[in-house]
Amino acid sequence: DSRTSSRNEAVRWVVTLFVGIFTGLVALFIDVVIKELMGLKVGIVKNCIELLSVKGYLVLSLLVLLAFNLTFTFISGLFTAAEPLAAGSGIPEVKCYLNGVKVPRVVRLFTLVCKAVGVLFSVAGGLLVGKEGPMIHSGAVIGAGVPQFQSFTFKKIKFDFPYFRSDRDKRDFASSGAAAGVAAAFGAPIGGVLFSLEEGSSFWNQMLTWRTFLCSMTAAFTLNFFLSGTRIEGENPDADSSAWGSFYQPGLLTFGQFKCPEGERGCQLWTVLDLFVFIVMGIVGGLLGALFNAINTRLTKHRMKHVHNRHPAIRVLEVLLVTMVTTIVAFTAAMTLGECKEVAPIVINVTSPVEQTVQYFFCPNGTYNDMATLFFNTQETSIRQLFHQEATFSLQSLGIFFLLFFCLSCWTYGTSVPSGLFVPSLLCGAAYGRFVGNLLKMLPGFEHIYSGTFSLIGAAAFLGGVVRMTISLTVILIESTNEISYGLPIMIVLMVAKFTGDLFNHGLYDIHIELKGVPLLEWHPPHGMDRLCASDIMETSLSYIYPHTRIQSLVSILRTTRHHAYPVVTENHDSMVERRARAKANTMVSNNIKFRNENSLTRANEQMRRIMSRRSAEIKILEDQEQRSRSGSMDSRNAEEDINFTLMTSSVELYRGLSPTAEDHGFGEKFKPLTFHGLILRHQLISLLSRGVCYAENTPSSCQPTLTYEELTEDYPRWLDIHDVDLTQLHPRMIMDVTPYMNPCPYTVSPNTPVPQVFKLFRTMGLRHLPVTNDMGEIVGIVTRHNLTTENLKQKLKDSQHLA
Amino acid sequence: DSRTSSRNEAVRWVVTLFVGIFTGLVALFIDVVIKELMGLKVGIVKNCIELLSVKGYLVLSLLVLLAFNLTFTFISGLFTAAEPLAAGSGIPEVKCYLNGVKVPRVVRLFTLVCKAVGVLFSVAGGLLVGKEGPMIHSGAVIGAGVPQFQSFTFKKIKFDFPYFRSDRDKRDFASSGAAAGVAAAFGAPIGGVLFSLEEGSSFWNQMLTWRTFLCSMTAAFTLNFFLSGTRIEGENPDADSSAWGSFYQPGLLTFGQFKCPEGERGCQLWTVLDLFVFIVMGIVGGLLGALFNAINTRLTKHRMKHVHNRHPAIRVLEVLLVTMVTTIVAFTAAMTLGECKEVAPIVINVTSPVEQTVQYFFCPNGTYNDMATLFFNTQETSIRQLFHQEATFSLQSLGIFFLLFFCLSCWTYGTSVPSGLFVPSLLCGAAYGRFVGNLLKMLPGFEHIYSGTFSLIGAAAFLGGVVRMTISLTVILIESTNEISYGLPIMIVLMVAKFTGDLFNHGLYDIHIELKGVPLLEWHPPHGMDRLCASDIMETSLSYIYPHTRIQSLVSILRTTRHHAYPVVTENHDSMVERRARAKANTMVSNNIKFRNENSLTRANEQMRRIMSRRSAEIKILEDQEQRSRSGSMDSRNAEEDINFTLMTSSVELYRGLSPTAEDHGFGEKFKPLTFHGLILRHQLISLLSRGVCYAENTPSSCQPTLTYEELTEDYPRWLDIHDVDLTQLHPRMIMDVTPYMNPCPYTVSPNTPVPQVFKLFRTMGLRHLPVTNDMGEIVGIVTRHNLTTENLKQKLKDSQHLA
Repeated sequence: DSRTSSRNEAVRWVVTLFVGIFTGLVALFIDVVIKELMGLKVGIVKNCIELLSVKGYLVLSLLVLLAFNLTFTFISGLFTAAEPLAAGSGIPEVKCYLNGVKVPRVVRLFTLVCKAVGVLFSVAGGLLVGKEGPMIHSGAVIGAGVPQFQSFTFKKIKFDFPYFRSDRDKRDFASSGAAAGVAAAFGAPIGGVLFSLEEGSSFWNQMLTWRTFLCSMTAAFTLNFFLSGTRIEGENPDADSSAWGSFYQPGLLTFGQFKCPEGERGCQLWTVLDLFVFIVMGIVGGLLGALFNAINTRLTKHRMKHVHNRHPAIRVLEVLLVTMVTTIVAFTAAMTLGECKEVAPIVINVTSPVEQTVQYFFCPNGTYNDMATLFFNTQETSIRQLFHQEATFSLQSLGIFFLLFFCLSCWTYGTSVPSGLFVPSLLCGAAYGRFVGNLLKMLPGFEHIYSGTFSLIGAAAFLGGVVRMTISLTVILIESTNEISYGLPIMIVLMVAKFTGDLFNHGLYDIHIELKGVPLLEWHPPHGMDRLCASDIMETSLSYIYPHTRIQSLVSILRTTRHHAYPVVTENHDSMVERRARAKANTMVSNNIKFRNENSLTRANEQMRRIMSRRSAEIKILEDQEQRSRSGSMDSRNAEEDINFTLMTSSVELYRGLSPTAEDHGFGEKFKPLTFHGLILRHQLISLLSRGVCYAENTPSSCQPTLTYEELTEDYPRWLDIHDVDLTQLHPRMIMDVTPYMNPCPYTVSPNTPVPQVFKLFRTMGLRHLPVTNDMGEIVGIVTRHNLTTENLKQKLKDSQHLA
Repeated sequence: DSRTSSRNEAVRWVVTLFVGIFTGLVALFIDVVIKELMGLKVGIVKNCIELLSVKGYLVLSLLVLLAFNLTFTFISGLFTAAEPLAAGSGIPEVKCYLNGVKVPRVVRLFTLVCKAVGVLFSVAGGLLVGKEGPMIHSGAVIGAGVPQFQSFTFKKIKFDFPYFRSDRDKRDFASSGAAAGVAAAFGAPIGGVLFSLEEGSSFWNQMLTWRTFLCSMTAAFTLNFFLSGTRIEGENPDADSSAWGSFYQPGLLTFGQFKCPEGERGCQLWTVLDLFVFIVMGIVGGLLGALFNAINTRLTKHRMKHVHNRHPAIRVLEVLLVTMVTTIVAFTAAMTLGECKEVAPIVINVTSPVEQTVQYFFCPNGTYNDMATLFFNTQETSIRQLFHQEATFSLQSLGIFFLLFFCLSCWTYGTSVPSGLFVPSLLCGAAYGRFVGNLLKMLPGFEHIYSGTFSLIGAAAFLGGVVRMTISLTVILIESTNEISYGLPIMIVLMVAKFTGDLFNHGLYDIHIELKGVPLLEWHPPHGMDRLCASDIMETSLSYIYPHTRIQSLVSILRTTRHHAYPVVTENHDSMVERRARAKANTMVSNNIKFRNENSLTRANEQMRRIMSRRSAEIKILEDQEQRSRSGSMDSRNAEEDINFTLMTSSVELYRGLSPTAEDHGFGEKFKPLTFHGLILRHQLISLLSRGVCYAENTPSSCQPTLTYEELTEDYPRWLDIHDVDLTQLHPRMIMDVTPYMNPCPYTVSPNTPVPQVFKLFRTMGLRHLPVTNDMGEIVGIVTRHNLTTENLKQKLKDSQHLA
């Protein structure tokens, strides 16, 4: 047994290693192909511009560019139409998946292929999207897929690899994969680990974190290993074959080295005084981010109504429209709005090729076109330009660029192409930061500031304002800059931006999750929840089964309900009267002092209370409205308070009268007390049914065939539907004994447990169903994920406040 | 209410900020004073050596050095004698504290003072100890202390600051403080956060992590801010007043920049091939670490027996002995065993002053004494020498240095002075790594390796072998080197070293925790625990109270027991016979199929079973031994299996017969069923008693005065002892109603819950008492921290295997 578990552990580590390697390779593939496509496109278009502009046919070059971009994004749109889940950055989906929500198809190989190929063409097609989000999603798919050693897209490929056949294992690997994706995308292995901790984990699992770390390190270094030896036009001109094997290249998205020019002694990357500027920049960044999110929310709602419901072709058309507008705007702006700036003297021994990527369109010798430099490079290059270009960009160009980019990227995010949000936000923010830096440089006392720092801070502020991530984003940015001394300013700016933005709306990923209506569990329940207890929020209408159930009833329950778990209960045949009598006899004598315990909640009480309270609430609300309309508007507040008071007292009356008269209303029969024995999952029942686990009416239950754990989980992750189970072999009056297969001791809570405690148990233990049992061992309700969403909790609180 | 909670949150952030600042200042104080003391000592001693060696009186210099060192360590020893908890690195204590164990006096201001002052003199006294561990402990004390705004050392200082009066809040702040300590000590804010996550947290709390991050960033940058402007002799010669405010200095322990010499094109920090060497180095490092731990364990056990039990003077004498030996050995080795090596040409524009810290004793011009360079610098400088000195150290010197340092530091750790383990281990490992590097350079194909990398890897391997930390140590080392590309090799080496070392013993911190007998909860229960369930490990002999209890009985319970929590129960007056009749009547009819639920465990059953099983086990063991002695030694294994089989069947018999005859044995009266109502803490009861919360026998319980939460927690953290409570005001027959103050719905588990599930609930929820209740709502036992220690669980498993 101990050997099995250590072999299992070893397999886990090896598989994790492979997840890391594959993720690195996929990232490499995406990166290299995008660069090749871009090289192809830019090469031809540049030639066109230079050739044709002499003759004045500039519009022809635009048409060539448009042709390229439209073709590319069309391909991307087609792939996304084939698998709609490939659209967007994928981070919301990954977040939901890691949170424990089952998002169908999100971790399938086909999704990965569509995403990876789609992102190639959406980025190469000149859309203002990044490739980082899709890489994270790809990592998660690889993580979830590789350990299964089988695929539903290619059903033929199947190994005998019976490990990790559970949702929890799969999710663990997916979180490692997502971390590897972050690591590969940003060259930030530690940031990747923190990302998956922040998004995925509920409790700190040391071994998992350590494995995740290995996975993200492996991904980052696999990518770097191959990048070090691959020679890509114009990217790393001094790479030669001898460089193979030097792992220590920076990641895909690197910001270059922040460094004061040699010799300038007064220059410092940042000082204490700058911190105050950074805080203001963080506030503005938060506001801008909130604006971005607000606009994008509107757009997304509009899209969901008018675009996503219709034929996929509409979506592809939208993509083409966005591409066309983006291309024309960028082209026009670059050609007409740029200013010619002097090229900075090329410093010898420079490591980052910033000076080599400026664009010279229509500018006299020794100068370059600043707008074209920003619009006609890859976004990563533009970011590096803003961070490190010593020659200045004009205020006007920066402002126009920011505005155009803000609008276009906001419009783009949410169209049906794979589209990351990180890099566009960073670029947009970098322009904003550089703008601030340029402004400051005009002030006395700020002549010596290092404008690269301001660009970086601006980028962090804007990105923080949009996505509202915290620790992981800080670490990712620190690792990308490879400059630990930026830790404090980046952290402060992200905190300020998040705080400011949160005053207005949520992060963009969360907004998209909300819009999809996913029951995501937050970290903490909303404020004020200690006023509610488990019985206030639980589901009281239960579908349950008995320990020994006839196939007939089992099938009918499975067919008529959609629950994922069923409590296994027995009915208590004592009548209510008898029970009450017992409760009275139960009067406790302890230490010669009598104590009567009357507060145990039963299902009948609870159901009764709910119906009564709903009725009385309706009446009271009517009264309330009447009274309010009567009372003057000036003292309406006081009046309201009075009403609340009467409401409270009356509801207390209600409670008092309720308990002893429960069965008079006929609830006694309907809500017989149910003794709780355990919990069984829907798919377990279906597996048992499909394998004929039951016994004939007149034989003892020990005649029932037994199933092993492996047989029970064989179908994972595609459980059979109850309608697909062949029931012809089973006589409907046969009986199934579920007791060997149920979970006999799940975590339970008492009805009086405060909601925060319930929430914490549910969240940190990663539960899906939490039975609520009273102190007589009877089940009175069940708490599921849907009962604990922020929306639902707030609604319940409002209801209860209305009553109380 | 919502405003209170957000104000509370704001206060929390501000306090966290101050914790960070104070921790940074304490680290600054320690660092600066140590440097001053060292400067004073080295200055005088060096002069002595140079003056006296001419005349041949070298021994006199040794005496001067000895005088300094003995004085310093004597002072350090005195402070440690005043507060024995100040001894050692403090990390084991912090780990225990964060794990939830109450270590008395560990977070008191007096401990902090003794630790901080003691470490100054132990480091300056030439002992082979580091200042980093004590800094982490200091951070934890500051974190635990500052938010309380009061001190027991200075009782006068008391503000009206009624926040955070709970163990959980205090622990949260302490974990932030510890992170700040790490951040200040190593300049590793992210590593600090991961350290406190690894050691302290059970579940991922996003807000706490974010606060911890702020705290550690603040600490690191506070320290750097002051360091940037402070000019210390020989440390940062180019610091000037204009540097004030440039935060971006490296931390206290920095490894300098790893960088290939300019111009050398073939040089790479490391390559793929080196990885294999690193793995071997990791294995050797793990072995060396395990050896270190094994020797230190022996020494510590010896110390606990012969030194720590006696008069404090003995301890101080031991410190003086260690100092004397260390000083003499280091002096002699430096003077006689060193080789003279050529000084490397000083590269222009060098940032780290490695070349300036070589020692020239007795060496001709242009050469330096390598052994003296290692022994006569601060340990941090020696580490940098080993990492970056381009001139070579001889193999012989490195070997001798490693051996001497290994033995001396192993002897030193555990003496009664504040003594960190990180830096000595790093130095020791760096010598080992440099040794390997030097060896390799002689091999063909390895001429171009960068020996600094090997030093670093050696340091990581040895440190990893000693302390066996994982993620946090990796990140700390990455941040200290400020070179992300070392991430992969460091991680791999630490993993290999940990794995190798774990085959032999535990990490040194864990060993010291074990030796102290602290009930630390590991991350996971040991293997095979799914064979046990809650009823196997719980405490069955309960001390309980009633909802309404007479003062008399309450006081006697509190005086005669030492439990921290008492279940509030009522006795069920049905006789056992009646109950069984009911259980029979309770035969469930569900869906026309009968199902009898008989498996509910009661206290009587459980207690009975234990006594019976113990008896039968004794008998069986005797039989077993007899039988074994009879059967031949060849097939003894088969025989044993047979016996196990009989044991199993007989114990099944035992169970079967037990249930119906339980009360025949007279247990029925003694173990009346107890209905569980809630849990109340010892200190709550005492607070209630001392405030006279009770009512007279002939008045209703509503006459009892009520206490607010603030009044109830006023005494935190020094709860009154029951013997100190003034009971003269209370009539012994008065009655206390505890129901308003008890926790009415703590987490509970059923007796059949498997131990891993119990463990997980207990660990992640940070519980202290977990009542075990059966499905009739009766308490049958309680699980505490002591029941869940690895040792205890393994014992229980062994017992159960013996029986089954």
